[in-house]
Order: sequence, then C-alpha cells, then structure tokens
Amino acid sequence: MSLLVVGSIAFDSIKTPVGSVENVLGGAAVYFSLAARCMGPVRLVGVVGRDFPREHLALLQDRGIDTAGIEVADGRTFRWSGEYFEGMNRRETLSVELNVFERFQPKIPPSFQDSEFVFLANASPVTQLSVLDQVRKPRFVMADSMDLWIRTANQGLLDLLRRIDGLVINDDESLLLTGERSIIRAGKAILAMGPSRVVVKKGEHGAILFTSEGASPLPAYPVEDLKDPTGAGDSFAGGLMGSLALRGRTDPEAFRTALAIATVTASFTVEDFGVRRLLDLRKDEVDGRLRRYASMLRIGVD
Amino acid sequence: MSLLVVGSIAFDSIKTPVGSVENVLGGAAVYFSLAARCMGPVRLVGVVGRDFPREHLALLQDRGIDTAGIEVADGRTFRWSGEYFEGMNRRETLSVELNVFERFQPKIPPSFQDSEFVFLANASPVTQLSVLDQVRKPRFVMADSMDLWIRTANQGLLDLLRRIDGLVINDDESLLLTGERSIIRAGKAILAMGPSRVVVKKGEHGAILFTSEGASPLPAYPVEDLKDPTGAGDSFAGGLMGSLALRGRTDPEAFRTALAIATVTASFTVEDFGVRRLLDLRKDEVDGRLRRYASMLRIGVD
Repeated sequence: MSLLVVGSIAFDSIKTPVGSVENVLGGAAVYFSLAARCMGPVRLVGVVGRDFPREHLALLQDRGIDTAGIEVADGRTFRWSGEYFEGMNRRETLSVELNVFERFQPKIPPSFQDSEFVFLANASPVTQLSVLDQVRKPRFVMADSMDLWIRTANQGLLDLLRRIDGLVINDDESLLLTGERSIIRAGKAILAMGPSRVVVKKGEHGAILFTSEGASPLPAYPVEDLKDPTGAGDSFAGGLMGSLALRGRTDPEAFRTALAIATVTASFTVEDFGVRRLLDLRKDEVDGRLRRYASMLRIGVD
Repeated sequence: MSLLVVGSIAFDSIKTPVGSVENVLGGAAVYFSLAARCMGPVRLVGVVGRDFPREHLALLQDRGIDTAGIEVADGRTFRWSGEYFEGMNRRETLSVELNVFERFQPKIPPSFQDSEFVFLANASPVTQLSVLDQVRKPRFVMADSMDLWIRTANQGLLDLLRRIDGLVINDDESLLLTGERSIIRAGKAILAMGPSRVVVKKGEHGAILFTSEGASPLPAYPVEDLKDPTGAGDSFAGGLMGSLALRGRTDPEAFRTALAIATVTASFTVEDFGVRRLLDLRKDEVDGRLRRYASMLRIGVD
C-alpha cells in the first residue's frame, strides 16, 4: 500500500569517535525513505535549497523513492552538524542552519493525496497538522516529535496526538511530554492522549511498544562495530512504516513484526556513516537479520 | 539437580523515591536463594553474626533453603545501606559494615560438596576460588563479580574466570574488566577469558547473553510500579541458576529459557522493598509471567 513521508532533507556533518563525514546527504525524511524503500515504494515530501545537487535526487529516485513532493526553494538546504562521544550514547549538536526548512510548508502533490500510510517526521506540530489536512483518507498515520515542540508548541502537539494513530518518541522526550518519572508510565500516559500505538525509543537499548494490551519491549539488535548513530531513529521509523505498508496490516502481530524490521533496519544504518549502509541495503539482508533476531528472542516455554 | 550458592547475608537499609526500610534481611546469597527456591531446593553457604535472628533462619528453611552452610561467627552481621534517586537507575551506597563477612572463609558442609550447580555470589576471587576447591565435580559453575575486585584483585579474578562456566556482570563492570568501549565487544572479550556463557546485566534495560554463537539480547520485563531495585541482579541470577538446575540442562535453548525466568523473577523482586515480594512468590506466578514475556518477544517471520 502507498506510503508517504513528510520531513527534513539535510546536509549533515558528523563526527564520532571512529571517524567523520562532512556535508553528506541526511535529514529525517531521507533516512526514513531509504529504509522504507527496502520494503516497497515511498513518496517523499520535503524542501531543499538551490544548492541541492541533482545527483542526490537521482540517488533517491533510483531507489524507488518518488521525489515529486520535493520542493526546491530559494536559499540553502537545511544543514546540521553534530558530534558523538565515547560510547556514542551522548551527542552534541554543533550547529543547526534551518535555512529553507525554517519556512517549510508541505505541499502534498495531488498524486500523493491518496496515501494510505503516512509518516510525519519531526517538524513543528503546525507543519505536521497541515499535512493531515491535505491527505484524503489515510489508514494509518504515525508521527515523530522532539523536546523543542514539547516545550514550545505543547498545545499543537496535543492537537496532533488526537489525530494520529501512532507516535514514535525518544525515552527522555516521553518523560518530558508526560511529566512521568518512568518510561512505562509515560508510554501509558501518551496512549491516553490519543494514539493507539506508542513506540518509545531507547537508543542502544531498543524500544518499548505501548498499546491497550500493555507494554512490550524490544531490545536493539547487537551491533559490534557501531560507526555512526545518526539516523537510527528515522530509519527505524522507515522500517516500521515500510513493513506495515507492505503487508497492509496494523494489527498487534503485524505491528510487532514491523517493529522487529525497524530494529534490524536501524542496526544496519549505524554500521556506517550517514546513509551509506542504507543506500544498497537489500530486503533479503533485512529479512536474514530479522530471522536471526526473531530466533534470538524465541523463548521455549514448556 | 542440586544447587549451591555461596555469598553474603546482610541487613539492608534502603531508601528509594517511594519509601524506605531499615535493617531488613538482604545480601546477595539471600536474594539468590529466595529466587531460586521457586524452581527447586537450594543449599546456602554464608556467614552471619550473633545478632542474626533465628526467625530469619526459619524463614529461609521454611522455603526449602538448606541453611546447614550458614556459619554463625562472633561479631555483627554484614550491614549495607543505600539510596536510589529519581528514575532509580542511580544509587549511592551510604554505608557498608562488612563485619563478619570481612573474614568470610566459606566452609562447604560435606552434604553440599556434591552440588552440581554452583553460584559464587559477589565476593573476593580468593574466597570464590576456595569454594571451587571444596566442591567435588560441579556440572556448571557461575559467578558474579564487581568493580572492587576488578580493580584490586584482577589476577585472582582472571584465575577464577578460567575455572567457571558462566559469569554474570554489570555493563559498566564489563567495560572496566576488558577495557573495551562497547558492551558487545566486552562480552566477547570476557568469553575469551574462560567462561562459555557471559551475561551482561543492564538494569532496567535487560541483559545480553554472550556465547560462541554470538550476542543475544533480552529486554527487562516492563514494571510499572518499581519500588526498590535492590537484589534485582541477585534474584536474576537465582532465577537463572534455579531454572538450569531444575531442568538439568545448560544447552543454548535451556539457557535462553533460564534467562527469561531470571528476567521475570527480577521483575517481581523490584515490585516491593527488599526480599518482600520474593518471600511468597510462587512458581506458577513466575511461569505465568514467563509466558506473557515469551509472547511479547514472539516475532512472526513469514
């Protein structure tokens, strides 16, 4: 089924304890798309500046990503730079230039307005809500958010939560959003705000899914040679939504499988810098690692 | 099959954000025994002072724990007090009085020397090694350790590692022991030091098992009302060894099931202060939660 993502497209400069890259293709919607396209076609809506090279567009198109929704605006493309430290569970943003993304007003092309699965990558709740006003009758809408919007656009975020089916959010942010002290309580509290599926991401420690049936944890896939955690969360979301759209199912069992695909997709992402590992990632590689992951978690009960 | 544990018996004073208790029964070997006895009989070796009440001994005996190996020495029982802060993933030791535990020289009663499964709870490597010299032909020996011994008794610890089958260790301590920067590398490095099973504990984030087949993660069982994390690791070890001893198997599949039992046992422990929840914990409660846990982790792979 059709899958739409709306979000940032960026140039990233990244430093980790094992290396660095400068001005490479990045952004939440790019990581999402490159992950989700392993499962099926993706429709991408975002904005870039005049400096965005044609080769990057071709690179996305070559991989089954429909770029009809990428607007080219006057100005420079969004730029981000950050550094990860020892252990890579702490990062510092060194600089952010929003550039054309600052005034991003997503325009969903007519050919995308019938999208059945929709992912609203991190953006202001107003921007995210404007997408929902442009898609006709989505079957399943999921969104990401961040501390900035929890602090500065809380009412908009609460409005958004009432209109979406699923939320992915980092552990710290789940506590900030709810004022709870534990993630287990926070996840439950977010369910009460609207979405029927809440996924709290814990970085190297995996994620926890909250539904009306309770909390269920998923550990991260063990990665020996972590190179760059950038985009782990966005490619996780891409694997998740890509899997749901591929199977056209959002029931609990399908959702758990989709979360496992999300987990292994993110594990590939962090094994190289930027989007490098995602570029040539094949579905059979994802499926192979999924089978190993499922077997790691299989527990014999007498 | 027979299961022996050797380790501390203590009086604990514990403060957490939701309450406190003073001078309650605790210690690694006590938590271990009270957890393992849900699976089958346990033989306990430890030392207490003249101040240790007879009722505590009766309480252990009433639960199928053989206390023939508890020595009563002149002096006071080991005392520990600590405080947990917001989120309960950080604790501060307020005071430690080793008392009779300082000169603990485990004497394994003749009736315990044929024990097939042996757990060496946290103690100096010299003390732990002295137990191995007194048990005849154990089938599976597992040990715990801590930062103190890694720093002060490294050679003894390396000697111990060559003589045991399994090690349980905290994540930070695995890094300290190996000098590695990631837990995945650390677990692998510890395998090379001797034991064929290494379990790295990550507190609220679960654990990772390392064997020659690789790393496999297990998330913690989600606990909504965490009251007191004290003894989580020791009751985890008790559930693990209790399950292995009950089934008389240590193959990979049995080990994974045992780790799942360890995980759910620890989840009960932290739901009340000290050993309180463990005192009346029944095997059918553990089994019920085990089934829920196994079903949470079941991933449908097409």
